[in-house]
Amino acid sequence: MSNEIRLKPGDTIGILGGGQLGRMLSLAAASLGLKTHVFCPDPSSPAFDVSFTHTVAPYEDISALDTFAASCGVVTYEFENVPGPTAAHLASRVPVRPGVKALEVSQDRLSEKEFLRSAGVAIADFATVDSNDDLEAALNRLGGAGVLKTRRFGYDGKGQVIIRTADDAKGAFDKIGRAPAVLEKLIPFEREVSVIVARDVDGTCQAYDIAENHHENHILKTSTVPAQVSPSTASTARDMAERIASSLDYVGVMGVEMFLSGSGTEETLLVNEIAPRVHNSGHWTEDACLTSQFEQHIRAVAGWQLGSGSRHSDVVMENLIGDECDRWPAVLADPSARLHLYGKAEARPGRKMGHVNRIKPKSI
Amino acid sequence: MSNEIRLKPGDTIGILGGGQLGRMLSLAAASLGLKTHVFCPDPSSPAFDVSFTHTVAPYEDISALDTFAASCGVVTYEFENVPGPTAAHLASRVPVRPGVKALEVSQDRLSEKEFLRSAGVAIADFATVDSNDDLEAALNRLGGAGVLKTRRFGYDGKGQVIIRTADDAKGAFDKIGRAPAVLEKLIPFEREVSVIVARDVDGTCQAYDIAENHHENHILKTSTVPAQVSPSTASTARDMAERIASSLDYVGVMGVEMFLSGSGTEETLLVNEIAPRVHNSGHWTEDACLTSQFEQHIRAVAGWQLGSGSRHSDVVMENLIGDECDRWPAVLADPSARLHLYGKAEARPGRKMGHVNRIKPKSI
Repeated sequence: MSNEIRLKPGDTIGILGGGQLGRMLSLAAASLGLKTHVFCPDPSSPAFDVSFTHTVAPYEDISALDTFAASCGVVTYEFENVPGPTAAHLASRVPVRPGVKALEVSQDRLSEKEFLRSAGVAIADFATVDSNDDLEAALNRLGGAGVLKTRRFGYDGKGQVIIRTADDAKGAFDKIGRAPAVLEKLIPFEREVSVIVARDVDGTCQAYDIAENHHENHILKTSTVPAQVSPSTASTARDMAERIASSLDYVGVMGVEMFLSGSGTEETLLVNEIAPRVHNSGHWTEDACLTSQFEQHIRAVAGWQLGSGSRHSDVVMENLIGDECDRWPAVLADPSARLHLYGKAEARPGRKMGHVNRIKPKSI
Repeated sequence: MSNEIRLKPGDTIGILGGGQLGRMLSLAAASLGLKTHVFCPDPSSPAFDVSFTHTVAPYEDISALDTFAASCGVVTYEFENVPGPTAAHLASRVPVRPGVKALEVSQDRLSEKEFLRSAGVAIADFATVDSNDDLEAALNRLGGAGVLKTRRFGYDGKGQVIIRTADDAKGAFDKIGRAPAVLEKLIPFEREVSVIVARDVDGTCQAYDIAENHHENHILKTSTVPAQVSPSTASTARDMAERIASSLDYVGVMGVEMFLSGSGTEETLLVNEIAPRVHNSGHWTEDACLTSQFEQHIRAVAGWQLGSGSRHSDVVMENLIGDECDRWPAVLADPSARLHLYGKAEARPGRKMGHVNRIKPKSI
């Protein structure tokens, strides 16, 4: 549907997915006088607590989707694995932003890599793997090492095997369930950085400052801003993110993860993957910028102008995973810290329960 | 009840009153993983949109109050005119914070003035007025001029008459409905300032930076921080606010309005009134401090430690009153501005519909 649809205060934004991202999007919408309608199959979705209304139904329930679409001026999503038919059905009734193309591209690592190449941004060399023979050929071409990743449904390190030796390669394709996959060349990256970029319906882009990310057990642990990178690398990263958003005719906020290797004037960036939604590595924006990524996404999908994403403070975001959320009293006692909890009842291992932003005066 | 009760994430805070203050308190609670239960007789209360649950009932409905109290770990309020019996009934079942004493004192201008005097803070001279004779005597004593104010239920200039001449005095008591009143000495104040102060269950106080307020038609229009006052005045104002909070054994956030006369080393502060709740002149904290007044109040009433109220930016808060909320597109276009709308359906004249915080880098 047309980019011309713009909401007014009091209108409703539909959100597919009721996790913490949907919750924080709902809170941001409420601050702007907008309502949200959260659609999620899970009856204990944390976003329901703060949304104007919600629907509990499977994503395949056409009747529920129709009722949902009729109640919303625009629909967005908090996760990239929205089933294709769900997105297509909704898009026939109401504008879906960021849009169906962004979902298609990001749901399949192969499509994503082909798209990124066509957009002219640098990525690690890769090969498709649909069999053990493919894997052997791919390893031969990429220097005997690589990361084997399923094309679909991978996250937080799931559906991935690192191959450094011939031994690693044995059974690797079985380990990922013999699912269609890609082998990415193993690059000696030193650090992961990410850029959160927003694009509005008029095509104006705005990228936040680059963040440096640290993972534990394949799950994001901290994002630090400013990242320790050269000014030209920071500028290149933002340009790459804006180019990706523009190439997708994207509307909303997107997370772009990149590998950074080398240092100083030798720094090199390769785009790892994109997430067509607000992103965990952008949670720092909530306490270090006037406009958070959540507000920015809501503004964009509402058809409104973007806000300023300029940063007023330095910040380190730390995820609270599993029972780390029990540390909330210590977080409250730290005068530099702001606590964010997602209202989830059960602190299962590996579950994201909240995060902390620790801020200090802006250095650069 | 005891100050010892401390909530855990996932617990529920009851809020009496469903206006924009209750709404912003609910949003702050949700960010901390706390739930809110909003109690308000008005079925179209804006706070209902974002609260976990709500009750529509009169404040006198004992059965509804009992059900409400049973669902909450602690109860707070967004307005000072909570009926005394309502507060007392709830307090017999659940901790009510800031507390019944703060309500009693602030609901009656005479009690408030007597309390402020006893707390040792400077206020304008005043006299009680229960009749025309009282008014005449009061005017004689206070120099022939003053502001006549009803003891109860005055706000935004309602229930007030300014008397500068003998003509003004005629019929003044009738104008305020012959209600019990006080006459305040008319002081040549140049400016109004306010301090938002928080106090936790352990008695720790924290005052935000002093704000300078500008009114139009007796309704707050802007609050500017930093205020243009001497450092010693700023320090005195914060000390006075902390002294007031401590004298009331207060738990939560309180607004303290003061008149400022003179300039430089001749600046003099007189406390005008206190509001035992989050306050319109503290809305700037949301975008210029790590911890907003709303989060600070939630932390205090939950029995948690206060957060840092230190300011990272300069800020001017502007209220959007009546149809001024139609200016939202211009606010979105201003990169220094953050828009806050309250989700109210109808923009009646004089109704607070939203506010804007315009920030810039911190000067002092």
